[in-house]
Amino acid sequence: MISTSILNVTSYTGLELLRLLSQHPTFNVTSVTARSAAGKTMTEVFPQVHGSAFASLSITEEPEQTELAFVCLPHTAAAESAVKLLQRGTKVVDLSADFRLRDAGQYSTWYRHTHPAPALLETAIYGLCERYRSRIEGASLIANPGCYATTAILALIPALASGIIGSDIIIDAKSGASGAGRTPTQGTHYTEINEDVSAYSVTGHRHLPEITQELEAAAREAGNSLANGLRITFIPHMMPMTRGILATCYADVKRDTPHPISTTAEARALYEEFYANEPFIRIVDSPPHTKWTYGSNLCLIYPMVDTRTGRLLVIACLDNLVKGAAGQALQNANLLFGLPETTGLPLMALYP
Amino acid sequence: MISTSILNVTSYTGLELLRLLSQHPTFNVTSVTARSAAGKTMTEVFPQVHGSAFASLSITEEPEQTELAFVCLPHTAAAESAVKLLQRGTKVVDLSADFRLRDAGQYSTWYRHTHPAPALLETAIYGLCERYRSRIEGASLIANPGCYATTAILALIPALASGIIGSDIIIDAKSGASGAGRTPTQGTHYTEINEDVSAYSVTGHRHLPEITQELEAAAREAGNSLANGLRITFIPHMMPMTRGILATCYADVKRDTPHPISTTAEARALYEEFYANEPFIRIVDSPPHTKWTYGSNLCLIYPMVDTRTGRLLVIACLDNLVKGAAGQALQNANLLFGLPETTGLPLMALYP
Amino acid sequence: MISTSILNVTSYTGLELLRLLSQHPTFNVTSVTARSAAGKTMTEVFPQVHGSAFASLSITEEPEQTELAFVCLPHTAAAESAVKLLQRGTKVVDLSADFRLRDAGQYSTWYRHTHPAPALLETAIYGLCERYRSRIEGASLIANPGCYATTAILALIPALASGIIGSDIIIDAKSGASGAGRTPTQGTHYTEINEDVSAYSVTGHRHLPEITQELEAAAREAGNSLANGLRITFIPHMMPMTRGILATCYADVKRDTPHPISTTAEARALYEEFYANEPFIRIVDSPPHTKWTYGSNLCLIYPMVDTRTGRLLVIACLDNLVKGAAGQALQNANLLFGLPETTGLPLMALYP
Amino acid sequence: MISTSILNVTSYTGLELLRLLSQHPTFNVTSVTARSAAGKTMTEVFPQVHGSAFASLSITEEPEQTELAFVCLPHTAAAESAVKLLQRGTKVVDLSADFRLRDAGQYSTWYRHTHPAPALLETAIYGLCERYRSRIEGASLIANPGCYATTAILALIPALASGIIGSDIIIDAKSGASGAGRTPTQGTHYTEINEDVSAYSVTGHRHLPEITQELEAAAREAGNSLANGLRITFIPHMMPMTRGILATCYADVKRDTPHPISTTAEARALYEEFYANEPFIRIVDSPPHTKWTYGSNLCLIYPMVDTRTGRLLVIACLDNLVKGAAGQALQNANLLFGLPETTGLPLMALYP
Repeated sequence: MISTSILNVTSYTGLELLRLLSQHPTFNVTSVTARSAAGKTMTEVFPQVHGSAFASLSITEEPEQTELAFVCLPHTAAAESAVKLLQRGTKVVDLSADFRLRDAGQYSTWYRHTHPAPALLETAIYGLCERYRSRIEGASLIANPGCYATTAILALIPALASGIIGSDIIIDAKSGASGAGRTPTQGTHYTEINEDVSAYSVTGHRHLPEITQELEAAAREAGNSLANGLRITFIPHMMPMTRGILATCYADVKRDTPHPISTTAEARALYEEFYANEPFIRIVDSPPHTKWTYGSNLCLIYPMVDTRTGRLLVIACLDNLVKGAAGQALQNANLLFGLPETTGLPLMALYP
Repeated sequence: MISTSILNVTSYTGLELLRLLSQHPTFNVTSVTARSAAGKTMTEVFPQVHGSAFASLSITEEPEQTELAFVCLPHTAAAESAVKLLQRGTKVVDLSADFRLRDAGQYSTWYRHTHPAPALLETAIYGLCERYRSRIEGASLIANPGCYATTAILALIPALASGIIGSDIIIDAKSGASGAGRTPTQGTHYTEINEDVSAYSVTGHRHLPEITQELEAAAREAGNSLANGLRITFIPHMMPMTRGILATCYADVKRDTPHPISTTAEARALYEEFYANEPFIRIVDSPPHTKWTYGSNLCLIYPMVDTRTGRLLVIACLDNLVKGAAGQALQNANLLFGLPETTGLPLMALYP
Repeated sequence: MISTSILNVTSYTGLELLRLLSQHPTFNVTSVTARSAAGKTMTEVFPQVHGSAFASLSITEEPEQTELAFVCLPHTAAAESAVKLLQRGTKVVDLSADFRLRDAGQYSTWYRHTHPAPALLETAIYGLCERYRSRIEGASLIANPGCYATTAILALIPALASGIIGSDIIIDAKSGASGAGRTPTQGTHYTEINEDVSAYSVTGHRHLPEITQELEAAAREAGNSLANGLRITFIPHMMPMTRGILATCYADVKRDTPHPISTTAEARALYEEFYANEPFIRIVDSPPHTKWTYGSNLCLIYPMVDTRTGRLLVIACLDNLVKGAAGQALQNANLLFGLPETTGLPLMALYP
Repeated sequence: MISTSILNVTSYTGLELLRLLSQHPTFNVTSVTARSAAGKTMTEVFPQVHGSAFASLSITEEPEQTELAFVCLPHTAAAESAVKLLQRGTKVVDLSADFRLRDAGQYSTWYRHTHPAPALLETAIYGLCERYRSRIEGASLIANPGCYATTAILALIPALASGIIGSDIIIDAKSGASGAGRTPTQGTHYTEINEDVSAYSVTGHRHLPEITQELEAAAREAGNSLANGLRITFIPHMMPMTRGILATCYADVKRDTPHPISTTAEARALYEEFYANEPFIRIVDSPPHTKWTYGSNLCLIYPMVDTRTGRLLVIACLDNLVKGAAGQALQNANLLFGLPETTGLPLMALYP
């Protein structure tokens, strides 16, 4: 058994980690923290954990010593905690944005804070397992990707890495409200979200630099020349639902390449080969529904060519709290400790 | 044209009043207040009033002089405003609870405040038009009934006033989240209410004394002896929807009366006669859906006898923001100014 | 009073027409039809019209003679009825797709039927009032635009007509489930749509040719050379909500024009000028919410320039059953009979 | 490993069984049937099982030989299948209503069919594990209780068995739409259920005789004299949500007993003792939310005394597809095969 702590367990990602870890054979949750709830037991805060092994766990302000820690704190606070945990020898999976951007300057631009631990940016690994699996295995600090970023990157990497699309990319993403967290605001008040859809953060959502960093890296590794970088527009939308992200991605198919693609069948073959050995990615043969991933760690991807315009469309979806957060964090932790990557991770959605 | 003000227009009831008054031929909204939004125009706070006649109305902190005022302030603050408005000669429809209970002692028990203007309790009329129409016409201060109270009282008054049921009453009520108002809380956070149903205020909801006061008055007027008063249990439930209240009411049919009822047909005939001339009440012949009243001022009532047990069941529903709040307030205002009671009030629901 | 019939009143658009016409001073509904409900009264089919003037209207199989008819039948059946109505001298607003495409060949390609009345395509006017107002006034047959088409066309016409964007256009649209009509299917079963979002009709939705026809016409009239036509990708998505369409439109800003735009302020100024006199269009200054149009005939439009990429984004929304169907139909009928265009049309949304 | 079949796997209960069995260490699903989908693989019908061990399972019309069968067929068809399965030596958990009522006459009254296998009513055990655990262990045919029945019976048995309440009982129940099954109907069309609540089956829901049978049995065993049986009114309501049942139960506390209860603390103590060793029942100390049981096999119960009226209220909730159907079926199967009762059953809800 590997002793495990969850920092800020009263967040939705913290609670989802608890759910997943309640089925995990090796990671043993021995410490949970939450400033506002310190001194209480889990069931005093969350009657919904009644019946789980964690019901009587006491919430503390600071974590006890453990081998593994999941950090669900807000950005900046997360980095500060990570520094301390690493000094103690704890392996850290950080679910905040603090170690996702390799460039501390980008961090201060987007998060309006000087990075609290820029030295760690060197060693932190961007925890997209499908891409950095081998580096994760030897790491001590994982930057768990953002929910939108995971969806968009998984959707587009095969196309960029194989050079079949150009640099013009549009990502129209739709997310359930749990992505906005557990703190009540006017914008997440029930009566405001119910029966409504709207775009938000249209002048620049914080997941955009992460998406750009990873997609450009993939394109460059594939020998794609990107003199001016990718030209990505990313527009998130708030959906009247709790869980799920769907990203509809649009790009121009390149004609001047050795092997241009022109049909949906070709696009699908390319994607199926790219992800052939991935346990949590499925190339589906009809446009996927977010609900098909409810509670599971799957990412479903549907690539197609719009034959009227020659564009490549890739529609991808996942559960923002699982593959987009807690599930991916656990997948990373499995790799960190040499466990089978799928350990304790649900493959089948709760449906309906 | 009658000059009209809305106090605390940034509440949901204030906004709903604006919607209804935008169709009203006589009441002219000339002043709107809201402490937090003073100095702004309506569209700066509510882009959703774009296109209405009220788009450019300026929000002030204190109301200007008008002939009519709708007070949408929280309790206590409402009474304080009402005092000032009445002194100026303004007729007041108060949507708060401040003047609903005739007994100031009850008020301090349930609202945990000494009543700010107990003298006004003598002159305030409980604005249930179907019951106090004639008194409302000559009044200057109307206590607009609570949303749950309106539903339950309209459902049960015919049975109590005609003496066909005993004193044992259970009211199991279900409400949409807009009844909880516009201020964000953990309990009204989208992700907490969506896909959930729960009972709340089970040890005593503030609409209970109002329901008891009115139902006991009706029973007594009908010559019903109530040595110990009615024995009412009222349990509200939060529904994952925005608008609508449905009250399922259970009572024992009395056997020892001159004309006991024993069939649904008899119950329906009694209700149809009782409400024969009411413009906003319909006795329906199948269990009503809250959605059939979405946006309208109707209250739908379905009385039936459960033949296995001899109980009377009455299921009633309405839109909590219309007949349960702003619509009823407007109905009261129409009566206050001698206008046809139905002026400007929608009779047809928005469906689906 | 102008006698009015609604064909297939048991559709959602038929029911919404009834709601709007219940507030209309001139159009008097005297005949309603529905094959499956012939012989019944309105309240027998829709308890939700209790209380309206239409409660006791009898549903017939064929319409009686009226001056105006709204045809809510499915395509093909609609055209067949329109032929008969026009022969009687009835003015027709057809809410189906039958007269939207000017080219009968396009019709048979997309609707898989030979057009039942191709001769009428000459005289039918595409009922987008903001564009064809003057022609509508003298017409006898109006093809009421599709809900997605209305949203996308209103969003993009100002940009195309002023030549500021190129021919590459992506329309990512999101719609509530009422757009799918009233007939139950697996895909519109409550438990399948709730808590789900998905793309559908990805290989070609039937509103695409309509959008293309109108946008290309606008571009050509503006002197825009379109050697190969526009290159439009249109992807609709099903939302877990009842009403509302939001279209997020992406296009490249042209640089090689006399007056290229490069800021959101310029885009907004252009749109505000273009729609300066339109009673139902509002250029908003933050991304609009579908809920801001719930039940109203407004279309809200938010144009912006994505400064990182130089793209023009236009986000537009409306209520698919009002401005996207019944409201627009009524707006057309007002024009047909020389009434003020806004007669009987709600400008303020039901909120929340 | 125990070979297992699911009959009518394309029902929601069948699909939920698959989800639960995908985590079960002993029951191995080797055969799945569905008339309408015979010949297809699971993923062809349900893309949402992508990634599970069952993805490639072939659906057949008739089940193969297995040691255990879960029958998810409609009533009557279920009994016919059960007969055949039992003859082959297969142990059967029937999720239909066919073997729930001990009296074949009651069956024909409520289900309007002559019972297809009345002889089996003798040996079938009503599969409420908390009540009939020891009989289930030796049985071959289990009648899995209805979802409403499970909630109501678990809520009320402690009070009836201990003689603290009288015979007057009201059960006001609220259910998500998945209880209505997977077949689309007008009543379960998304746009009809969304933003709506209504009562249904008010003249007699089919779970009533089941509830009555079990509650009367419990009362009689406890030495409660029930000359005229219990006087139960049961009113179900449809909620705008997918999963979850909440039953609010009202009963009169008996005064003329040796140990009458009069406080919530006493009621809770009694309930806690009654269910002290039950793995899936939790007595909670605030009114429970259905969402606290989403996807888990828990039943949460909140007993209280309404001190104003002396009534006992018991509010209970569960996930209708888990403890109300598939989870309870699996709990029964665990007992049938001598496995630990909790094997493979989730104790922690998916939240939010």
